Amino acid sequence: MARQTRERILDTSLAMFNAAGEPNVTTNHIADELGISPGNLYYHFRNKDDIVEQLFSRYETRIDDALLIPEDRLPNLEDIWLQLHLVFECMWAYRFLYRDLVDILARNRKLKLRFARIMTRASASAAALMRGLVRAGVMRASDSEILAVAENVLLVATFWLSFNAVRGVKTDVETLDLGRGIHQVMVLLAPFLREAEREHLNTLAGAYSA
Amino acid sequence: MARQTRERILDTSLAMFNAAGEPNVTTNHIADELGISPGNLYYHFRNKDDIVEQLFSRYETRIDDALLIPEDRLPNLEDIWLQLHLVFECMWAYRFLYRDLVDILARNRKLKLRFARIMTRASASAAALMRGLVRAGVMRASDSEILAVAENVLLVATFWLSFNAVRGVKTDVETLDLGRGIHQVMVLLAPFLREAEREHLNTLAGAYSA
Repeated sequence: MARQTRERILDTSLAMFNAAGEPNVTTNHIADELGISPGNLYYHFRNKDDIVEQLFSRYETRIDDALLIPEDRLPNLEDIWLQLHLVFECMWAYRFLYRDLVDILARNRKLKLRFARIMTRASASAAALMRGLVRAGVMRASDSEILAVAENVLLVATFWLSFNAVRGVKTDVETLDLGRGIHQVMVLLAPFLREAEREHLNTLAGAYSA
Repeated sequence: MARQTRERILDTSLAMFNAAGEPNVTTNHIADELGISPGNLYYHFRNKDDIVEQLFSRYETRIDDALLIPEDRLPNLEDIWLQLHLVFECMWAYRFLYRDLVDILARNRKLKLRFARIMTRASASAAALMRGLVRAGVMRASDSEILAVAENVLLVATFWLSFNAVRGVKTDVETLDLGRGIHQVMVLLAPFLREAEREHLNTLAGAYSA
């Protein structure tokens, strides 16, 4: 029962952070929304930062899973699409984090270190996938090109939601938004692909550019 | 004399915002730093938002200049380097804006509209430069590729400083930092360049990747 309340608090906090932005939601708002007393909430969590950290742990587990790459065979273009879908869906599920990323990390040193670790892993994962594509003959790029592209892949993915926000694009149409983000990442790889794969990609991408 | 005080307030505010982050600096801090009374500061500016808006106007003039492209001849690769240097130097001069971009724009609807206009102009400018390179025979890309690359150019440039911040990279070494940012933008164009220009670019870029 206590465990159930704890999970409900986390679920509700996540929904409220995503809808209104984490800085605009207080623990009182969360208790109100759940119809529990602030005292009950504080029985489960020390403060709002504690809630943010627990949500970050959920996010971390999910993004770590999304970054796994096939180890028993060479990757193909579908692996990249799948990984990007998993990563973007995870980012969307925890979009409050990406919306105020610089701020949240500046306020919490522990999360900053944990996020830096995720970025390092994501960078290694992107580079490993591209090296696999080169070995499979699907992509042609030097190692320094791969490292530079991996850096841009990270940057474009991490700030895709912020970019939409500052351009005045509404970010509540999930599928369209994520599809366009994935497309923008694929654009980074496209020019290094073999002609057939590049054309295949352009066809797939056409669906998002409407 | 009044005009001089006004300019001094703006210069000092900019330096303090850049050093500490705009949300962490109050009008009292600014008056203190200048050795003037808060009353004197309020004679010149209604509130901190007023100061931010005036600094935004300075930034807007400078970035508009940086986005001008040669109209009387086809552009070359040096034009792109020059424009990127001007744009990144302007971003660095007003880095408080880029550090808390999503937040500052969410708080001020007028600035949000003005920033969206700058983004539209920057996107058009990037696309026009690339189309010029295609006409000059230096670049090979379809128009849909150019539009997608222009979008990524904007995203990488706009969030370069934020990206460094969340990766835990110190952002107070101006030249190295801006050079690496410019390099990451050039990486977006590189695969579409003619072989000679691509090699030239890789040589130039080598200086930054240390």
